[in-house]
Amino acid sequence: MASGRHDRDSVTTLALDLLDRVGLPDLSMRRLAAELEVQPSALYWHFANKQELLAAVADRILSRIPQPEPGTGIAEIAVGIRDALLAYRDGAEVVMSTYALRLGARRAQDALQTVVGDSASADALFEFILGHSTLVQQRMHAQSIGAATDIAHDPTEDLDAVFLAGIRAFAAVSAVPDQRS
Amino acid sequence: MASGRHDRDSVTTLALDLLDRVGLPDLSMRRLAAELEVQPSALYWHFANKQELLAAVADRILSRIPQPEPGTGIAEIAVGIRDALLAYRDGAEVVMSTYALRLGARRAQDALQTVVGDSASADALFEFILGHSTLVQQRMHAQSIGAATDIAHDPTEDLDAVFLAGIRAFAAVSAVPDQRS
Repeated sequence: MASGRHDRDSVTTLALDLLDRVGLPDLSMRRLAAELEVQPSALYWHFANKQELLAAVADRILSRIPQPEPGTGIAEIAVGIRDALLAYRDGAEVVMSTYALRLGARRAQDALQTVVGDSASADALFEFILGHSTLVQQRMHAQSIGAATDIAHDPTEDLDAVFLAGIRAFAAVSAVPDQRS
Repeated sequence: MASGRHDRDSVTTLALDLLDRVGLPDLSMRRLAAELEVQPSALYWHFANKQELLAAVADRILSRIPQPEPGTGIAEIAVGIRDALLAYRDGAEVVMSTYALRLGARRAQDALQTVVGDSASADALFEFILGHSTLVQQRMHAQSIGAATDIAHDPTEDLDAVFLAGIRAFAAVSAVPDQRS
């Protein structure tokens, strides 16, 4: 990216792009500044610290979640969240760490709460989706670098069945009757 | 630890101790070798690579899970797994990465499967517990280094309610009728 004026939005866009290319361990403020052709200190004009930057990145990742419409089922919403987390490298880990710090928007939990009765259940379902998606991304990463012990094995095999089993459990206690099948 | 003969078991013991003191990012084969007063190459006599060492550490962490007896309920088993993961710093992350690579024993899933009907549901519940415990440990770590945005807030407040909401969902589809209350 050529030098020039940056705003919070454009810095977030490039941070997400950089995350997808290099992964979370290599996403440093220094490296991001180099990509933007600015001094690292310039980034702190937009973000107080790296956590705040990662929270903006997490919100951007979750902005892919479709807004649920009346009648949208629990499985459709959960799959939408999982797919948003998996769309960018280490996406689940970025969102998990942001959620751990109570930063970021609650777009995912709000979507889940339209089908799950109470906020504790919506949070629990979100934590299941985060745990599952982190696992999927770690498995895909291990496969990509040849570290998986069984590289002939499809890294995501059986995972859909596990994901749906989790959704089925939360659907059973869902507030929306027609999701209880 | 004084120099001397080490076996796989004693190396695992020290690795777990080191993990608990320094955390996963600083648990390197080099540092572990220094603690053992051996050359790093000596460790590879016991473990082919770091992943195999971490799998042994993960198995040790999960060895704390009580063996379920007939009638042990889903909540008691799930709490036992969560507490084992939380007993050592970054325990959840070590077990998650081991599980992602399909390494390590299935002690946790086996315990869960005694109360949850199918293996997909047992895996899903384990992934919920892993996601939840990772979140708790990240929150506790942020609090301990003063990085939490709201340090007056109890980092684990509300988390028990969320954990129990997740257990309640899986209990609803459990194979054991008396856990469905």
